[in-house]
Amino acid sequence: MVIVLKNDVTDAQINELVDWLQTFDVKTNLIRGLHSKVIGLVGDTTKIDLESVQAKDMVYEVKRVQEPYKQANRRFHPEDTVIEIENRKVGGGKFNVIAGPCSVESEKQIIETAIAVKKAGATMLRGGAYKPRTSPYSFQGLGKKGLEYLLKAKKETGLPIVTEIMSVSHLDQFEDIDVLQVGARNMQNFELLKELGKTDKPILLKRGLANTLEELLMSAEYIMSNGNMNVILCERGIRTFEPMTRNTLDISAIPLLKQKSHLPIIVDPSHATGMTSLIEPMSLCAVVSGADGLEIEVHPDPKNALSDGAQCLTPESFESVMERIKACVEFVGREMDKN
Amino acid sequence: MVIVLKNDVTDAQINELVDWLQTFDVKTNLIRGLHSKVIGLVGDTTKIDLESVQAKDMVYEVKRVQEPYKQANRRFHPEDTVIEIENRKVGGGKFNVIAGPCSVESEKQIIETAIAVKKAGATMLRGGAYKPRTSPYSFQGLGKKGLEYLLKAKKETGLPIVTEIMSVSHLDQFEDIDVLQVGARNMQNFELLKELGKTDKPILLKRGLANTLEELLMSAEYIMSNGNMNVILCERGIRTFEPMTRNTLDISAIPLLKQKSHLPIIVDPSHATGMTSLIEPMSLCAVVSGADGLEIEVHPDPKNALSDGAQCLTPESFESVMERIKACVEFVGREMDKN
Amino acid sequence: MVIVLKNDVTDAQINELVDWLQTFDVKTNLIRGLHSKVIGLVGDTTKIDLESVQAKDMVYEVKRVQEPYKQANRRFHPEDTVIEIENRKVGGGKFNVIAGPCSVESEKQIIETAIAVKKAGATMLRGGAYKPRTSPYSFQGLGKKGLEYLLKAKKETGLPIVTEIMSVSHLDQFEDIDVLQVGARNMQNFELLKELGKTDKPILLKRGLANTLEELLMSAEYIMSNGNMNVILCERGIRTFEPMTRNTLDISAIPLLKQKSHLPIIVDPSHATGMTSLIEPMSLCAVVSGADGLEIEVHPDPKNALSDGAQCLTPESFESVMERIKACVEFVGREMDKN
Amino acid sequence: MVIVLKNDVTDAQINELVDWLQTFDVKTNLIRGLHSKVIGLVGDTTKIDLESVQAKDMVYEVKRVQEPYKQANRRFHPEDTVIEIENRKVGGGKFNVIAGPCSVESEKQIIETAIAVKKAGATMLRGGAYKPRTSPYSFQGLGKKGLEYLLKAKKETGLPIVTEIMSVSHLDQFEDIDVLQVGARNMQNFELLKELGKTDKPILLKRGLANTLEELLMSAEYIMSNGNMNVILCERGIRTFEPMTRNTLDISAIPLLKQKSHLPIIVDPSHATGMTSLIEPMSLCAVVSGADGLEIEVHPDPKNALSDGAQCLTPESFESVMERIKACVEFVGREMDKN
Repeated sequence: MVIVLKNDVTDAQINELVDWLQTFDVKTNLIRGLHSKVIGLVGDTTKIDLESVQAKDMVYEVKRVQEPYKQANRRFHPEDTVIEIENRKVGGGKFNVIAGPCSVESEKQIIETAIAVKKAGATMLRGGAYKPRTSPYSFQGLGKKGLEYLLKAKKETGLPIVTEIMSVSHLDQFEDIDVLQVGARNMQNFELLKELGKTDKPILLKRGLANTLEELLMSAEYIMSNGNMNVILCERGIRTFEPMTRNTLDISAIPLLKQKSHLPIIVDPSHATGMTSLIEPMSLCAVVSGADGLEIEVHPDPKNALSDGAQCLTPESFESVMERIKACVEFVGREMDKN
Repeated sequence: MVIVLKNDVTDAQINELVDWLQTFDVKTNLIRGLHSKVIGLVGDTTKIDLESVQAKDMVYEVKRVQEPYKQANRRFHPEDTVIEIENRKVGGGKFNVIAGPCSVESEKQIIETAIAVKKAGATMLRGGAYKPRTSPYSFQGLGKKGLEYLLKAKKETGLPIVTEIMSVSHLDQFEDIDVLQVGARNMQNFELLKELGKTDKPILLKRGLANTLEELLMSAEYIMSNGNMNVILCERGIRTFEPMTRNTLDISAIPLLKQKSHLPIIVDPSHATGMTSLIEPMSLCAVVSGADGLEIEVHPDPKNALSDGAQCLTPESFESVMERIKACVEFVGREMDKN
Repeated sequence: MVIVLKNDVTDAQINELVDWLQTFDVKTNLIRGLHSKVIGLVGDTTKIDLESVQAKDMVYEVKRVQEPYKQANRRFHPEDTVIEIENRKVGGGKFNVIAGPCSVESEKQIIETAIAVKKAGATMLRGGAYKPRTSPYSFQGLGKKGLEYLLKAKKETGLPIVTEIMSVSHLDQFEDIDVLQVGARNMQNFELLKELGKTDKPILLKRGLANTLEELLMSAEYIMSNGNMNVILCERGIRTFEPMTRNTLDISAIPLLKQKSHLPIIVDPSHATGMTSLIEPMSLCAVVSGADGLEIEVHPDPKNALSDGAQCLTPESFESVMERIKACVEFVGREMDKN
Repeated sequence: MVIVLKNDVTDAQINELVDWLQTFDVKTNLIRGLHSKVIGLVGDTTKIDLESVQAKDMVYEVKRVQEPYKQANRRFHPEDTVIEIENRKVGGGKFNVIAGPCSVESEKQIIETAIAVKKAGATMLRGGAYKPRTSPYSFQGLGKKGLEYLLKAKKETGLPIVTEIMSVSHLDQFEDIDVLQVGARNMQNFELLKELGKTDKPILLKRGLANTLEELLMSAEYIMSNGNMNVILCERGIRTFEPMTRNTLDISAIPLLKQKSHLPIIVDPSHATGMTSLIEPMSLCAVVSGADGLEIEVHPDPKNALSDGAQCLTPESFESVMERIKACVEFVGREMDKN
């Protein structure tokens, strides 16, 4: 941590600040300049609250040098984390494609979709039973019933299930679910993250609409510091001023997160763009930028989908997109995971 | 709702779409142009999912004409909503100032602050017992103990208590709390909103960091459609590219929300700016733009605050800011509420 | 400037870097930590390119401590700059209101508007002769003819003229114009700024749609470092994700710029919001936040305006808004300037 | 164009509006709903100013159905535009890589770089002679001298030259330059665009930091409607809240612009990210998303570059990146252009 002091700070003030800082078990170094004085801190500064330091009258600016995340930090865990999900491996070089409808709408719909996406090469099945919708008047998902249908689809196809959890109080319903997804709007629902940290379930953590990559890693840290190391990060587009796409896919986040963290990372091109015509090119970008997988919305009848129809592929178009994805995965020297 | 069709749509396709739309009990009108065809819908379109319409092959663009919020909509409730909180009235012309520390740190700290802010003219006390912190390693609040200390401070001063609720599972601890705050990061925690909608507690709903005003009103709608009409909206700054301030206070949101909705609206200049020197000018802006109140962070010893010190006023500076606020409230022809 | 080095940097590398830095006539101080090493620079670092330092292999992060603007910096010029314009004083405590149509459309239109806004209390006249329009098919302004009409309106009313210059090649046409406006889209048209810096005309410099406050001050610095100290800054809204308003007025920019710089600052609520109903409340915010003036669009017949009609006040509504502005100016203890 | 009227509009008002609209030679259709009335316009509405319509008292909302760009619109020119530059073809399936330093610093530097990038497979040479720098105190480029050195480098290597023009007044100096670049900060410098529209030079038009794709196409339209059809679009990152990268590369802009327009599109990963480690993955994304080329910064000695060192590749690392780019171009079934 580097603390830049104001011009007119007195020696007494500096001493007071230094004394306080040393209560955190760090060493301090003072540089005296013509126009400014700077204190450099040596040691573990994660316990020092940046804003409390900023609050001091004499402080002009504070800058953290160490990243505030530890468990998720590649610096301390150079090896890629690999998460096992029913014989699939997320993160170890294999490429996974999670596909399925935005919402589970019926037993028939989800089983049909599961069979279709498996046929096309998907390695896991997604489908929302609990749906975070902007409007209380929109379809909110089938809930418990939806989870049951998902498990039937798993029985039918062998595909592991990825589905969103919206509340700690639903946790017991997710016992047989393979991967618990935390949606963008809940990325900083810290109470939920803490509870998920106490399970050993793989967690698919989506980046919030306006959250920085550091905040995403800090949310992963909430789960990991509570004991659960099975976190998969997901880039799904951020909110910008551009109105043509639903969100803006931040594709450079993939190689950057790979540098900063050892956790697996996947891309959701469906929510990132909101347009079916962009799913194929964005999927290929995910592959060449180093992502470990994709999450793609597929619906047997997008026109009549109860949610997010505009961004759903049909099984036929998904098959064609998958052909390109598989070729691209091979091009980058990786392999599709077990299907 | 206005649906713009693609150039090459056939009559058969149009008929199919019209049939489907009419299942929602709306009337349709078709305009045939040279380059485009447009369908206008008449009736209650809130049940029609915009994205499902967008998903149809033949649809070029869809535009909602009616606002999707009903309970919060001024069009259907022209009178201002007034929320009674221990003889204070939020929304009926009176001006309220909620003040206190970011976090409750000790019984002594919160009682001292309560006495000080009451003396300066604050009408309610704020203080966090459960704290949403970006880092799991930061101080997370005193929890239940913090709520107890707040209630002691209320006993001492008579100031009603405003404090954040982060999880449905804590709801029973908040029985004696006067106003339940939903933080920016939980603005779209829909499960929490639904449960709060089943209580009759006043809810202070903060705008998310990157949420539109329509989304804020839709989150209010979640609470209201579940039965609780006591919602206070709060503008607390949005996330932009400007790095000098913590967030960017969207001050035009105040008169706009007043036009669109009958709900009371307050401003949080502390989180919006993150700088004590900006609290006075932004507070005056809140008053002249028509806000019903303010929420301001005050700490007896900001330098040693466990959170958000950089934006906390001391009791002395709060007193001086309050003098200006009171004068400004008088200037706009309003009155400070009971203190 | 503070330079954080990478963990694994060698002494030889550090020496090489230090030697290079010292060619800029600064002193260097090295702090050796457990996990990182930091170099603090003492002296005038404005000549050192931040990005060149960042480019060095061994550098983890660079942070400027000194602000990069000098001429515009309040630190070196504590007194407010006051700019004289035909007996008006912008910046010395007096409050100025610049009003007029988006575009000059005819001699009659601009003279009528000038008379009307003067009557209501405006202290200067605005009107676009050269118009920056997103579309080449939109009305581009009357050009030279428009400037002539503006000068006739000045002759009629005595109001000084504020109008936008879009190209260095037009400069000779602006000889009799009182204030040259640089539009948001040209805020970083550095060739234009340099040329304007060689004149002695007051320059009204508008903040770009996505420019930081530091960048705004650096653009002022372009003008000032070329010799022209008569720069008036203008906040006119920034681009965010919120669709309800044309832009988002960054009202906290006013007190912040006042802290950082000695230059006068005005607010343009018309472009910031794009909605006539928001002009009065945003104007009052400008006054109470410390702005030195306002620029407001007024058109005798907004319905038939050739540009920006949606945000234009009629002379009647302008008069009513001016009543509130005048009262507010008095409330903050300032005076309206000569009208 | 679709115009939604306010609830309480009278028939007399509607007639007045319809009469006015018909002066633009369009047909109008009125839909009367329960809660709203809508007018649909048929015909060429590009001449009708959206904001003037919005300004009418009775208008609730206006929505354009037709895109406002014509010359750049793929709807009216389904074939890809191909631009010939010294036997290279930008846009017709061939893939071009423009490489070189941010700034021309000396004859030796630019010739060395030209030889190196040609050897690695670059098809054109870039280098700034006039540099748009945020600070007036930063290196502003060698100007005319820089252009001379670029032409010497062309003579040496045969690589066509791409370099930025910042002012209409420099136009005669660019006579022998092959491609004139318009920088992000000048994307809406409309006077410059108009003048470039009167030349027949290929123009490389960079997207502004906070400009929408529609605005980018409208700026292309400025050039094209003045007669110059040789416009190459360039995505170079937009400004968001994410601080880790210099900008956020909007990769979905590539396939979207390809859908909307027939103009060639290239990607600048150097400015988009500001980090050398991200250039390779982002370059591959450009290829697989359908871009026609890349513009990459290469400097023989990035550590001592006078500008933008942090994002410059060395000739060696550029060679290695080019290997991957070439493989990827082959993977998508395209060919590298003449080198």
